[in-house]
Amino acid sequence: MIMNIIDLIEKKKQGKEHTKDEIKYIIKSFMNGTAYESQISAWLMAVCFRGLSENETANLTEVLGASGETIDFGDLDNLVVDKHSTGGVGDKVTITLIPLLAAAGVPVAKLADRGLGHAAGTVDKLESIPNLNTNLSVQSIINQVKNINAVIASQDDNLAPADKRLYALRCLTDTVNSDSLLAASIISKKIASGAGNIILDVKYGAGAFMKTPEDAIHLSKLMVNIGKIVGKSVTAIVTSMEEPLGRAIGNSLEVIEAIEFLKGNIQSGDLAELTYAIGTTTLIQIGMYDNKNEAQNFLQELVQSGKALNKFRELIIAQGGTVEVIDNYDKFELPLYKVECESKKNGYVQSINAYNIAQAAKALGASRQNGTSTLDYSAGIYLNKKSGEYVKKGEILYTIYSNDENKTKLAQKFCDEAFSINENKKNHCNLIYSIIGNNDEDNDV
Amino acid sequence: MIMNIIDLIEKKKQGKEHTKDEIKYIIKSFMNGTAYESQISAWLMAVCFRGLSENETANLTEVLGASGETIDFGDLDNLVVDKHSTGGVGDKVTITLIPLLAAAGVPVAKLADRGLGHAAGTVDKLESIPNLNTNLSVQSIINQVKNINAVIASQDDNLAPADKRLYALRCLTDTVNSDSLLAASIISKKIASGAGNIILDVKYGAGAFMKTPEDAIHLSKLMVNIGKIVGKSVTAIVTSMEEPLGRAIGNSLEVIEAIEFLKGNIQSGDLAELTYAIGTTTLIQIGMYDNKNEAQNFLQELVQSGKALNKFRELIIAQGGTVEVIDNYDKFELPLYKVECESKKNGYVQSINAYNIAQAAKALGASRQNGTSTLDYSAGIYLNKKSGEYVKKGEILYTIYSNDENKTKLAQKFCDEAFSINENKKNHCNLIYSIIGNNDEDNDV
Repeated sequence: MIMNIIDLIEKKKQGKEHTKDEIKYIIKSFMNGTAYESQISAWLMAVCFRGLSENETANLTEVLGASGETIDFGDLDNLVVDKHSTGGVGDKVTITLIPLLAAAGVPVAKLADRGLGHAAGTVDKLESIPNLNTNLSVQSIINQVKNINAVIASQDDNLAPADKRLYALRCLTDTVNSDSLLAASIISKKIASGAGNIILDVKYGAGAFMKTPEDAIHLSKLMVNIGKIVGKSVTAIVTSMEEPLGRAIGNSLEVIEAIEFLKGNIQSGDLAELTYAIGTTTLIQIGMYDNKNEAQNFLQELVQSGKALNKFRELIIAQGGTVEVIDNYDKFELPLYKVECESKKNGYVQSINAYNIAQAAKALGASRQNGTSTLDYSAGIYLNKKSGEYVKKGEILYTIYSNDENKTKLAQKFCDEAFSINENKKNHCNLIYSIIGNNDEDNDV
Repeated sequence: MIMNIIDLIEKKKQGKEHTKDEIKYIIKSFMNGTAYESQISAWLMAVCFRGLSENETANLTEVLGASGETIDFGDLDNLVVDKHSTGGVGDKVTITLIPLLAAAGVPVAKLADRGLGHAAGTVDKLESIPNLNTNLSVQSIINQVKNINAVIASQDDNLAPADKRLYALRCLTDTVNSDSLLAASIISKKIASGAGNIILDVKYGAGAFMKTPEDAIHLSKLMVNIGKIVGKSVTAIVTSMEEPLGRAIGNSLEVIEAIEFLKGNIQSGDLAELTYAIGTTTLIQIGMYDNKNEAQNFLQELVQSGKALNKFRELIIAQGGTVEVIDNYDKFELPLYKVECESKKNGYVQSINAYNIAQAAKALGASRQNGTSTLDYSAGIYLNKKSGEYVKKGEILYTIYSNDENKTKLAQKFCDEAFSINENKKNHCNLIYSIIGNNDEDNDV
C-alpha cells in the first residue's frame, strides 16, 4: 500500500490507531525530508488531542530508538543500569547515585541531557568540574563502564537522532505535553543507550513538568508498560518536586552538595532520602537484594567507608576532570558575590516554591534562557532553611552566589516570592509518592 | 504585551479565544517568517480541534483580507457582485451566470481560482477558450467592469496573499476541513477583491467538500455572519452536489454547455435551475427586484433575446479570447477519441456519484492530479443520461472525450461505478436546499 503523510495526519485527526508501518513511515519521512516539518507538526498536534495507544507508543519508541547508533555493552547489557529523572530544581541525585551504585558493583551508564527547560541538566552540572569531559564516544562509554563501572556522558547525537529532532520540533510547536510522546522520547533514548535496567524518577509538583501525582503515575505506568513491550526492565519512582531537592541550586553548588553527601556529611533530608530510595530500588530491581533495609544499610556503608566518594574520584579522573575539586571547593569557578539574605519574620518555613527558585537560578545565569545561551557555573542559590525548619527574623534564609549585582537583585525578588513562612508547625511531607515496577503484576513469580 | 507564538498555540490548544491583536500577530509572524511554518501548522491543527469563535473568524478574515492589495471599484463598490462556489463537479454556473447578470445591468467581478482539489476551477475552464487571458491586473479588472459590466479573472497573487499562503499550508497539513478557516479564506478573498455583494453557492454531497446539508448550512450561516461583521452583503445558496451539475464534465465541454445555455438551448434541468436561482437571488439581494418570478422572467428574456450570449462574446473579446468558439465549437482544442459508452441494462438512472465522475475526469487529465500538472482542456465526460431519465440496454449512457486509450479505460471504470440504474421510477430531488441571507433577521425592515 502506498502511504501518504496527509492521509496519516487525517487518520490520527480522526483518532484512529496507526500501524507500526505507518509510524515507521511518518518518522522516516520526517528524517529524510519527504514530509515537511509543517506536516509532522500537524500530526504531533493531532497526537496531543487524540493521544497514542500503548501499542502505537511502543512502536514509536522502537522506531525512534532504532533511528541511529545503539550502544552494545555485550555481556553486560542486561546488567547495566541507567537512571533518568524527568527533571527537577536542585536535582543532583544522578551525581550522588551513580558513584554509589558503581561502588556497589552495579555497572551504570548514565546518558544525560543538557538542560533545556527551566532547570540545568546533569551534563551542565558535571561540566562545572574544570576540564571534565562528557562528550564521550560510544566506545569510550563502553570502555569506561567496563573499567570503573560508571560513566556520565552527554547523549551522543548519533543515538536516537530522530528523537532529538522530533523533540526539538515539539518544543517549537507546543507539542511537548503529551504522555505518549514523552514516554516514547524517554524510552527511545534508553533503547539506543543500551542499558537493560532503567530507573526513572518521575517528578510532579511546582518545579516539575507534571503538576499532580496522578499525572506522574499515569506517565510512569505507561513507561513501565512500554519498557515491557520493548524488552527493558523499567521501574519508576514517583516523587514530589514542590520544593527544590537539597539546599543547593546552581551547577557547581549542586556538585559540591553531592560531594558532601558522598563524604557522609549529609545523612538526612530529601537528597539523602531520595538517593537511598532510588539506590535500594535499583538493587532490588536487579536482584542484588530483596530486602529494602538490607540494601539501604549496604549503600550507607559504601558512603561511610568512603568507597562511593572514591568511585566519584575515579569517574572524574576517567573523564579528564580536575579531581582536586573534591578536597578543595575553591578549585571550582568562584562567584564574585555571595549575598546572605535574611528572613523578614519569625516562623516555620511552610513551602519553597520550586518554580520561583528555578526562575531565580535562571535570572542568575545558572540555567539556560534558551537553547544557546552559556551558563554561569558558579552562580546559584543555597537554601539555608528548608520546609519545616524554624527561622528567626534576621537569620539567614538563603544565600545567593552571583557575578552580577542586577541579576542578584532579580534573583532575590524571585526567592522572596518562593518562601512561605508562618508560625504553624509543619508536618513532614512524603517525598516519595509511589514506586511502579515491572513486576507489580508478577507477585506470584 | 510581548507575544510569543508558542504561547498563542497553547492558548488555542486550551480552547481559549484569541484577541484581534493575537490573530494579527500570528498572521504577521507567518508572513514575515518570524514564526516557523511548523508552528503555524500546529496552530492550524489546534484550530481544527478547538474551532474559532465568530469574532475570531471575523478578525482572521479581516487580517487575511488586508494582507495585500485590495481592489477599489470607487462608486461601484457597493453595486459590484462576486459569486463564489465552494466547488462541485461539472459546475459551470459562473460561466452561465456572469454574462447573464452583466446583461441585466449588474456589474460583476468574478475572481476565481484554478482547481486545487478533485474539480477543475473556473479559471481552468475559461482558459480552454484559445488565447483567453484571465491573468488581469487590478486596473484591468476595474476597467473591464466599468466598460462591459463583467470580468472573470484569476485571483491576483497580490490580493490576500496571506490567505493564499495559509491555504497552501492547510492543504499540506490536512487542516483544510475547518468551517472557521474555510469561511475566513473565502470571505477574505472577497474583502480584497472589492465587491460589496457576495453570492455564495455552498454545495454538499458526494461531489462536494461538505457531505451533508447541515454542514453546508452551518458554514453558510457563518459566512453570512462574518460578512455582516466585515461589511459585506452575503447571501448563501445551499445546493446539492450528489451528482454532477449539467451533462458536461471537462474544461471545453463545460464551456460549450454554458454557451448552449446562453443560446437558449438548455431551458430545463439542474444547470438552468441553479443559474436562474442564483441569478434571481442576486437581483433580489441588490434590490433590483423583490419578486422571484419577475426576476426570473427578466433573466429568461435576456437569454431568449441573445443579450446574455452577446455579453459573453464581449467578455471573451475583452479578455483576448478566440470568440469564434461561440459559433464553431471546432475552434476549441479537439480530443483524439470520442467513446460512446452503452448502458448494460434497462432502467431509470437512480444516481450518478459525482465523486466517481470527478475521478474519471481526473484520470482523463481534465483536472489536476496535483498543484503543478497541466490540464487536457479537450478531455472530459458527457452524461447522455441524468438521474430520473430512462435508459435502454445498449443505448448511450455517457460519452468519453480523451487523448489516451489507457486513460479512457480507467475513466470508463470510474464512470461505470458512478451510475446506479434500476427499474424504479425516480422522484425529482431538490437541487436547492435553502437560501441564507443577510436580511433573514431584518424582515421587518
